[in-house]
Amino acid sequence: MTDSPDAHPDTLRTVGEIAALARIIPRLPRGEHTVLGPGDDAAVVAAADGRFVVTTDVMVDGPDFRRAWSTPHDLGWKAAATNLSDIAAMGARPTGLVVALIAPADTAVAELEQLADGFADACAALAPGCGVVGGDLSVGSTLTIAVTAFGDLEGRPPVTRDGAQPGDLVAVSGGIGLAARGLRMLFDEGVDDEGNPDPERAAALRADEPRIVDAQLAPRPPLADGPAAALAGATAMLDLSDGLALDARRIARASGVVVDLDAAAVCIAAGVDAMFLPLVLTGGEDHSLLATFPAILLADGGPGLPGGFRVIGRVVEPGDGGPELRVGGRPFEQRGGWDSFDDV
Amino acid sequence: MTDSPDAHPDTLRTVGEIAALARIIPRLPRGEHTVLGPGDDAAVVAAADGRFVVTTDVMVDGPDFRRAWSTPHDLGWKAAATNLSDIAAMGARPTGLVVALIAPADTAVAELEQLADGFADACAALAPGCGVVGGDLSVGSTLTIAVTAFGDLEGRPPVTRDGAQPGDLVAVSGGIGLAARGLRMLFDEGVDDEGNPDPERAAALRADEPRIVDAQLAPRPPLADGPAAALAGATAMLDLSDGLALDARRIARASGVVVDLDAAAVCIAAGVDAMFLPLVLTGGEDHSLLATFPAILLADGGPGLPGGFRVIGRVVEPGDGGPELRVGGRPFEQRGGWDSFDDV
Repeated sequence: MTDSPDAHPDTLRTVGEIAALARIIPRLPRGEHTVLGPGDDAAVVAAADGRFVVTTDVMVDGPDFRRAWSTPHDLGWKAAATNLSDIAAMGARPTGLVVALIAPADTAVAELEQLADGFADACAALAPGCGVVGGDLSVGSTLTIAVTAFGDLEGRPPVTRDGAQPGDLVAVSGGIGLAARGLRMLFDEGVDDEGNPDPERAAALRADEPRIVDAQLAPRPPLADGPAAALAGATAMLDLSDGLALDARRIARASGVVVDLDAAAVCIAAGVDAMFLPLVLTGGEDHSLLATFPAILLADGGPGLPGGFRVIGRVVEPGDGGPELRVGGRPFEQRGGWDSFDDV
Repeated sequence: MTDSPDAHPDTLRTVGEIAALARIIPRLPRGEHTVLGPGDDAAVVAAADGRFVVTTDVMVDGPDFRRAWSTPHDLGWKAAATNLSDIAAMGARPTGLVVALIAPADTAVAELEQLADGFADACAALAPGCGVVGGDLSVGSTLTIAVTAFGDLEGRPPVTRDGAQPGDLVAVSGGIGLAARGLRMLFDEGVDDEGNPDPERAAALRADEPRIVDAQLAPRPPLADGPAAALAGATAMLDLSDGLALDARRIARASGVVVDLDAAAVCIAAGVDAMFLPLVLTGGEDHSLLATFPAILLADGGPGLPGGFRVIGRVVEPGDGGPELRVGGRPFEQRGGWDSFDDV
């Protein structure tokens, strides 16, 4: 990934897969829910309520990250955070993850150790008690990180995207559009004079704008707000991975309702001026939580919204146009959001 | 992957990720243990005994397969079979799997449908009731299939590799060395005059030697024999993925014993002449089950070994050399087996 000061660092090729794993595995968190950890054909994880939540997502060098911008630690952190966010978006508490890593044979083992540390630090910071219970390491030309994450619903039903009811509040926890602003900044200022990603310029930019750039490179999704939303009675929830407009439209369609976002409230929640509204509506990769709640939570004497959730809109009955997204009462027709194949 | 007769087939680039998924997901088996299937942030799978078994493994175009030899259906089948074999090797019954697929943008959607059919057919044939509960589809330069599989221990302890006891029988269920013979045949005869993998020659070879070539391209591991071995009292078990010698040595080391294989019994179990013994000992990818059992199972009036297990050796006390592998009573020092980074 980056050049090492050591002229002959250990690489996957020089030490082999088994020796590399022996250095990586001890750095990974065991986790509180791990019955049997790495080292056998498979691991065993507790699933106290007789079910487990599972999601899988892959990050590929090129389409999903650039090594000139992301450190190995960032990559491990982001791979953990983005998968665990999907677990939280079901209202579940993260319990574990498995990591399948494909790395070029000339990858330094020290970089794989830093990647493992990114997983460990993200679990400790965002989902304490969540362990890395197993993995796979193989050689390939393109650095690829495939993560599968698990969670515990603690006896609750999963919070799906199809339960929003007319009258519900629409609320978000976590940044909106911040990760996309970070990516735009990196493309504008984290490149050399030919427009190629440049590690030094990216590092300088990150030092100047850590909040925005970190939202892209090492996001901190509000994982604890997933179970908190479920406990508070959230009627629908998802992880804001593809942009507020596209993801809000998903809730509208799945629930058969209209989601009407308040442009001013969206900008306030995003902490930006109205000029950024288009980016806030369409920018992906925030991994914040978008949820709908019964309005009674904010009625006089109500408990309020859980955790960091802030109201950004209302759910209303579908009109003649059927389920859709509106912004300020008017249909928002732009596709918005992000679909990897369309953007390639 | 292969050329399509359609001059302008739908590809990931032309239809987009979401439309491609809409065509693929209905072809996947829902499974009997699936509480909530694909379509939300995450799936929910039953884990009746309060735990689940999990393993992950990746197949990469080039190191792990060649598109000239494997059809898309083969790839889905093998990815399912090899992961589910690790579940069975813990003594668990497969309950589900998730698939993260990375495919080049010019991949025909029809080929992804065939790949999905391979997953479905492998589940139906080898692990009825096991579903594909979720997945991820992204674009990348190298076709890559990352699978995470789950299983249910049905209240039993997992069968790990460290429980073999002196006096135990060593037994195998499934082929030994057959997948490696298939790979060798493909390298010898499934290539063109320049030595490059050739689809027509490989297909002709497969028609002549279906049992051997299928063992490599579309293996049928004896998954039901995993739970059967656990119920019969297996003391240690693993999936023969890296070759009999290397995997038997793993049981010996983890259990602190000597595994002494009977060369004649190994050849009989493998169904080959003694000239093939080296390949049988070192050839990987069979995904058969290697287990140790209390000898009383084969005593007069004993129940015999479960399923397709055949005795190929004995567990004995370690001598001065400590835990090790012996063949016919003599130390087998060759490394044997397969470590992807050493072979690259």
